[in-house]
Amino acid sequence: MEGGNTKTGQKIVVAVDESRESMHALFWCLSNLVSPTSNSTLVLLYVRPPPPIYSPFDAAGYMFSGDAISTMEKYGKDLVNSVMQRAEAVYRNFNVKVERVVGRGEAKDVICNTVEKLDADILVMGSHGYGFLKRAILGSVSDHCAKHVKCPVVIVKHPEEN
Amino acid sequence: MEGGNTKTGQKIVVAVDESRESMHALFWCLSNLVSPTSNSTLVLLYVRPPPPIYSPFDAAGYMFSGDAISTMEKYGKDLVNSVMQRAEAVYRNFNVKVERVVGRGEAKDVICNTVEKLDADILVMGSHGYGFLKRAILGSVSDHCAKHVKCPVVIVKHPEEN
Repeated sequence: MEGGNTKTGQKIVVAVDESRESMHALFWCLSNLVSPTSNSTLVLLYVRPPPPIYSPFDAAGYMFSGDAISTMEKYGKDLVNSVMQRAEAVYRNFNVKVERVVGRGEAKDVICNTVEKLDADILVMGSHGYGFLKRAILGSVSDHCAKHVKCPVVIVKHPEEN
Repeated sequence: MEGGNTKTGQKIVVAVDESRESMHALFWCLSNLVSPTSNSTLVLLYVRPPPPIYSPFDAAGYMFSGDAISTMEKYGKDLVNSVMQRAEAVYRNFNVKVERVVGRGEAKDVICNTVEKLDADILVMGSHGYGFLKRAILGSVSDHCAKHVKCPVVIVKHPEEN
């Protein structure tokens, strides 16, 4: 048991989104939890919001066209690619196996379910500093996950957002 | 930036108390965040409750003797030693520099203040699974710390208490 970093082959889920904070969390994870000998797998988890239920008419009474809906779907997919590309720029110089998972639904539920389903060893995520009021009333995603997942949870804040 | 565990000389605060969970958190920290080359310092932080304000009489109307008060103080100190000894049994086989800090007051405030004062890089603590009601109403120590400290916070649950 001499030394440390004795655990190998761990599955580390990192929840990523559009925020700088989540990219910082990813970098923190790579710098602190992954070593060349640890043989860890990093699972990048991005959660798309649940599909909106479109009324055939918008607020102004105009009918939504199929085109508009497919444009919004395409925007969502572009966002996934954009986030994954930003993540790749962070992990590309680290010697680590990376898997990508894209979920859909309420972020807090999808993250908890994915961690459980994958039997992950660690969950890493940004704190999502929504400010006192929103956090106090709604609870944040990280609060929820810290309470509900079984494995250790690392909550990382962006230094400039403190 | 190849590999990982690039950060050295980090100051890691581990909040320890009488619970099995906090000893598990300490072991998790040693196994995952400390390596022989990382030159990290582990700060074991134990928080004693604030000193009670003794009425000269107890509920039954008997006067508290100085002896009773000093006995309670001694019990508190014995508890510190007991926790630190249990912690030592966990970290003794790891190659890491350890400092001990004993604070006094409300755990959540003392932990946050100590992390800030020491300019710590990471805070590791147990989740203190108080159950839904108490957690929802009062908030737990780990909830509070995860919201208020600036550095990354690792919340570790004991596997058997999930």
